[in-house]
Order: sequence, then structure tokens, then C-alpha cells
Amino acid sequence: MRLSQYFIPTLKETPSEAQIASHRLMLRAGMVNQETSGIYTWLPLGLRVLEKIQKIVCEEQDRIGCHKVLMPTIQPAELWKKSGRYEAYGKEMLRITDRHEREMLYGPTNEEVITDVVAQYVKSYRALPLVLYQIQWKFRDEIRPRFGVMRGREFLMKDGYSFDLSYEAATDTYKKIYESYLRTFRRMGLTAIPVRADTGAIGGDLSHEFQIVAPTGESTIYYDGKFDSLSAADMTFDIASKLYAAADEMHKADECPIPADHLKTARGIEIGHIFYFGTKYSEPLGAKVTTPDGQTIPLEMGSYGIGVSRLVGAIIEAFHDDKGIIWPEAVAPFKVGLINLKVGDIKIDTLAEGLYTQLSNKGIEVLYDDRDERAGTKFADMDLIGLPWQIVLGNRTVETGMVELKNRKTGEKIEVALDQIADKVC
Amino acid sequence: MRLSQYFIPTLKETPSEAQIASHRLMLRAGMVNQETSGIYTWLPLGLRVLEKIQKIVCEEQDRIGCHKVLMPTIQPAELWKKSGRYEAYGKEMLRITDRHEREMLYGPTNEEVITDVVAQYVKSYRALPLVLYQIQWKFRDEIRPRFGVMRGREFLMKDGYSFDLSYEAATDTYKKIYESYLRTFRRMGLTAIPVRADTGAIGGDLSHEFQIVAPTGESTIYYDGKFDSLSAADMTFDIASKLYAAADEMHKADECPIPADHLKTARGIEIGHIFYFGTKYSEPLGAKVTTPDGQTIPLEMGSYGIGVSRLVGAIIEAFHDDKGIIWPEAVAPFKVGLINLKVGDIKIDTLAEGLYTQLSNKGIEVLYDDRDERAGTKFADMDLIGLPWQIVLGNRTVETGMVELKNRKTGEKIEVALDQIADKVC
Repeated sequence: MRLSQYFIPTLKETPSEAQIASHRLMLRAGMVNQETSGIYTWLPLGLRVLEKIQKIVCEEQDRIGCHKVLMPTIQPAELWKKSGRYEAYGKEMLRITDRHEREMLYGPTNEEVITDVVAQYVKSYRALPLVLYQIQWKFRDEIRPRFGVMRGREFLMKDGYSFDLSYEAATDTYKKIYESYLRTFRRMGLTAIPVRADTGAIGGDLSHEFQIVAPTGESTIYYDGKFDSLSAADMTFDIASKLYAAADEMHKADECPIPADHLKTARGIEIGHIFYFGTKYSEPLGAKVTTPDGQTIPLEMGSYGIGVSRLVGAIIEAFHDDKGIIWPEAVAPFKVGLINLKVGDIKIDTLAEGLYTQLSNKGIEVLYDDRDERAGTKFADMDLIGLPWQIVLGNRTVETGMVELKNRKTGEKIEVALDQIADKVC
Repeated sequence: MRLSQYFIPTLKETPSEAQIASHRLMLRAGMVNQETSGIYTWLPLGLRVLEKIQKIVCEEQDRIGCHKVLMPTIQPAELWKKSGRYEAYGKEMLRITDRHEREMLYGPTNEEVITDVVAQYVKSYRALPLVLYQIQWKFRDEIRPRFGVMRGREFLMKDGYSFDLSYEAATDTYKKIYESYLRTFRRMGLTAIPVRADTGAIGGDLSHEFQIVAPTGESTIYYDGKFDSLSAADMTFDIASKLYAAADEMHKADECPIPADHLKTARGIEIGHIFYFGTKYSEPLGAKVTTPDGQTIPLEMGSYGIGVSRLVGAIIEAFHDDKGIIWPEAVAPFKVGLINLKVGDIKIDTLAEGLYTQLSNKGIEVLYDDRDERAGTKFADMDLIGLPWQIVLGNRTVETGMVELKNRKTGEKIEVALDQIADKVC
């Protein structure tokens, strides 16, 4: 992509309304624009990251046999009256009356709709296990939206729902998704700690939040220090779920099973939340199947959320410095930033254009800074945007045939021959 | 995908509420579920088609240099008051009051939001031309939703917005998108006729609807018979826009410039609509730039819509028979349906599993019917679902090493050696 023709409205000033790094950096890097409190437009750079996160989430859901669906944002209130949540949900639910005076709402979560779909079509144990998921916009009318996309009102969430015949089968599904979540977050460069959590408005018996440690986290988490030394491969349900880790509302200091000097306390950002809740929705909504021995029983259910738009902010909280964002490669909007220091110089333009074409033809995503701007502006913008690799072409490239390759994360700079740079960044 | 583990709830009966073929077939093939009037959940098979259409639309938008953004569904009313459309839009607009009693709405289209974004960040002619687009859910509270996803209330639309410095530049952009739309629809197997249209609530001076001819179309179109003999390559702005073609409200029989025996009348389904409207929104919303000679002038704008969810229905209207859907390959949910006639027979299972793996490894999307069902049910379901190719394995495969390959469109069946079938369908 040529920056001169693209739309990345970076800001020089730090926006005063932004209290945390990710919010500040997303505004400064031209990733989002606030439309009103807690509601954002995703500009091209931000949307590219959002879409990469979605892709990883979908791939990992598909890998374990979940099936993708898409529910509407606007739903009839009837289903929510059946489950008892229409009144219970309070003012966070955006309630709407349509032109025929029917009560509708903007789905804050979707247990009711999906249970009703399954109740209509799934009648036999043979269709089980079944996990359906979607990535769709939700609305929760937070009283005080803040921290940019981390606590917005309109937000993008992956929500999945499992349907099983028995408690045992349901907990197997729960474990499978628990492990899949760890892998999903790891692919984005994040080490999530699964903490025992309250089931809140969703209800149920068993629940984990996936938290990443960050000083700007909104909640306090308590966890066994052994988590910090667990390798990725060891982070399974069987091992991780035996270590103590609890959200604030679940932690009682005097009942904590591990000694105080093993207990760590940190601020956490919740990026996922999973629930097992048995027949809480299948009973009232009539989602029942016949068993192998001819009985009819309600389905055992769980639900599984990943905060897709929130993850954009959470990743920035985890990976930034005072110059800007430092994207992990898997979610970077482009892999390489190509900086032409002498736009208008025919020799350098020719080399830069050639390299841009060469890299693009190899399938590498390149943001080519072909703007007629000062070097200082270009370096600052590229550091702010935070692509993993920067390639710099200038006078020296013409003289020596070398370009500078900079690693945004380490700051390390090396000289690479122009004819070897494409292989180097592949 | 193994059908035994998938979620395609096909129906044997024809749903009584469905008046047209696409609505009937989408319900029967388990593509969507109606949640309430004009609001649908997309089930896995339907969603696959919806996503393929989105991908084609995005590729063609990106090809001509449009940039993808994503605006929120819920918007503040203020912007719409500035443009004068808040009152004008009437009951089709879904109006919402949030917990702080602020007036909001569910965007039925997005000229206001995007113009406001551009007004904030684009200050100079050097950023032009600029075309921003998104694929996002819209809501129009139709008084009588009908025809399934063809005229739903919550629907998925690609909406794009162009910003130019002058009338000439804006019409160049208009032409470029006009031609891009023809290519977009052609990739889905559709020949769209661009008809001169009324600008309606969007406003403006120049507008074309893209219509496909279908007996179930909701509008009447009048067009020069020469359209029917135009090759794809000849379907350019310069040629097509000189031929007479008009929507019902634009056609006056006594003013029609072509002789009656050259005029064709048909029912049409609108799948796209483009508008040039000058400074209608940039003026009130303050989207102005400086010109090369230092003046400040409002931007020249256009907007460009494609009915993404409607296209799923429109394609089915164009391609079906009495047995079911006949998907064009580019948008088919899977390319191949693999039917095992003898599930449980170890020899045939082994051959079928092997072929399923082989095709999948070649990147071919296969729906493998591994259910323990009668042959008649399998054939009927596969014809209903309408994948382009069917491969049938049964006793004869074990005896002769041959499988049957059926073309869903022509009905033609040929025998192909098992070891050659993968190359054949590639």
C-alpha cells in the first residue's frame, strides 16, 4: 500500500481524552475515530488489525470443529422474556421499539437466540456434540464507556455456544475450548492466565476468565507464581486449572489455598470468558433431544466469549513503547514499512518502487511511505504505527547498494544488500 | 466438511410463508433461520455463501484503490440533524434512546458518518481522490418485510463513498466504480443492467441501479434490447451508459428515445445502486479542502451500494431448478459434494475417506455426505444444496474403480477413474 494514497490520519498531539496507552496510540496512529461515547469507526489501519485477529480466532474455532453462524444484532424481546433475562439485564441492554411497537433489543450476548435455533432443529443425540460460534457486533450501554475500544458500547465479540448430552460431555467440550483459547491468544503473542471467575449474568457453575497482565488492567487477579514459569506447551487444562488463579470477586484471602509468598497479585485485562451453565437456557427455551435409550432431556450448554475489538487495545497495552505500537507479526496491519527518504530523486524512487513491487509480489504486506515528507516525520510515523520491520532507502542505497533494516521491537538496525532484503524479511 | 458433524438443518416440507424460490430454497437448504419479521440468523451453509460474496466485493473494491473502513451500526442523531435527514427519513429509520436519553439510530446508510470522518482528517486536495467503503449491517424498518433476505430489515450492504475535488474528477470516479460493479457481479455469474434511476432519499443528480432480470423482481425496468447481446467486454460505462435503460419511475413512454420494438420490459432485482450528489453532504457537514490555488471548497461526493445479503437471494433467483439451488462456482458454499452411498461398508468407506482427504489436501472445498441415510435422501439433499459438482461412490466403485461425477447445472453424469477424479475437478 502506498501511504500517499492511503488513509492513515495520524495525529501529532496526544488526545486529551485518552487515559491509557492503547487508546492514545490508536487515536494517534489513525486506527479509529470516536463517533460518540464508546462508539468508534474503524479506519483502514485499525480494521486491518481487527480482521487479522478475527482470522486467527476463526481458524482456531474451526480447527476444533466449531461451526460458524451469524445472528442478527437486533432481536425480539420475547426470547429474553422466556429466559428471564429481559428484566434482569437492566440498563446495559439497549432496548428498542420498532414501527409496529414491538419490543426489540440489540443483543449484548446471544444465549437465547442460539438456544432457540438449536431447539428448532436439533432433536437427537446424534447431532451432538455441537458448537456454534459467530463474530458479530454487540451493544452494552455502559454507564461510563472508557479506555477506547477496551470498554466501548458497540464492540465486536466472538461468542460460541456448546450443546452436549451430558455433564461429562459438556465438561470435555469446555476443556477443549479452554485449551483452544490459550492457543488462540498465544498466536497473537499473548500469554493469558485462566482465572476462576464469577458466572455473573450468564449464570452457571463453572467459569474462567482469560486475563493478560497489564498495569492498566481494570480488574485485580490473584494467581500462583508458577503460572509465570509455565511453558506454552504446559499450559493445558489439566495443569493450568489445578493452579490457583482467581478474579477479584472469587478471591478470599483467608481461604486462599496457597501460601502468601507464592501468590501473585496483578492487574489484568480480560480478553476471554468461558462458562458452563448446564440447562439454564435449554430448559426454558425447550432445547431438548432424545437420548440413545429414548428419553427426552434438555441439552447441557456452555458459552465462550473472546473480546475481538478489545483485543486490539489489549495487544497494544502489552506491546508498545514511548514511540508507539510494537505489533506482534501475526496481527500487524502490514509486515514491513518501506521508507523512501528521498522521494523525487529518480534513482532512489526507482530502487524503492522496484523493491515495493518485489516484496508485494512475494505476498509480503508492505506499507510504502512514498510521501514527500521530512525524514524525521517518516521515522516517527513508522515507529508510531509499529510495523515489525522497517526498510530504509536513501542516498546510501544508491552509493553502496545497501538498505537499512530495522527491527521495531528490539530497535536493532542492520545493513542488508538490496538484492537480499526480500529473502531476509520473508 | 463431514455432513454428519455439520449443521445443515434441511427441511423436507416447503415453508408456507415463503412466496419466492430463493426464500423457499434458503429455508429448505438450512441456510437461514428467521428470528422475527425481516431478521435472520445465517446458518453455516448460508454464511459461507455470504462470506464468498463479501470476499469478491472486497477484492474488486481494493483493486480500484478503495480503502476499507468499518462504521458503527449505532450512530448519534446529531449528524443526521445537520444533514436534514433525521426527520426526512421517516419510520424506516430505527430510532433509539440510550440510557442517558441521547437520541441514537441504527444506520440505514452512512453518508453522514463518513462525511464527518473525512471532514475531520482531510484538509487538502493532495489526499484526493479518496474512496472509503465498508461492509456492515444496516437496518431499515420496512413496513412489510418479505421475500426472505431479499427485503429484510437487518441486511448486509457494501456502502462506499467517494471524495473528489471537482465535478470532472467525481464523474471519473463514478465511471470507475460503475465498471467495477459490472465486473463484481460478473464474477458471481450475474449480468447486471445499469438503469438510470431516481436518486430518492440519498439525493443528487446522477444515479444508476444495477438490476438483474428475474420474473420475481420487485421493480419494472425498461431497456434497449441491445443490452442482451452486449458481451462482457463491451459492457463499459461509455457503451452501456449510452444505451437506454430506465427504472420504472424514470421511464416515460411518450418521451422514450428508442422505438417501441427495440424496447424491452422486464422485472428486475436491484443488486446495486450508485449516486453522484455533489456537495449535498459535504456542505452541511463541513467537509472542505484547500485547492492547489489556495481556495477552500466543499468536496464532490458520490455513494455506492451493493446489497450483499440480498445477493444471496438474487443469485438463487437466477440459478435454480425444481430440485434446488445451482450455485455458480465462485460463490458456492463448497465446490464438491462427495456422496458415500454405503456408509458402514469398510471398503467403500476407505475409498471415500481417502478421496475426501485427497481433495481437501488439494485445497478443494468438499462437503462429504458420510451420513447413514438412504441414497434417495442423499441425492435429494445434494441437489437441494446445489454444489457445482457431485461425486458418487458406491458398490460400483469397488468393482470397477470408477466414481460418478455429476454436473449439477447440466445434470450430465460421467464415469471417472477414482485416481483421476481429483485432477478432473481441480
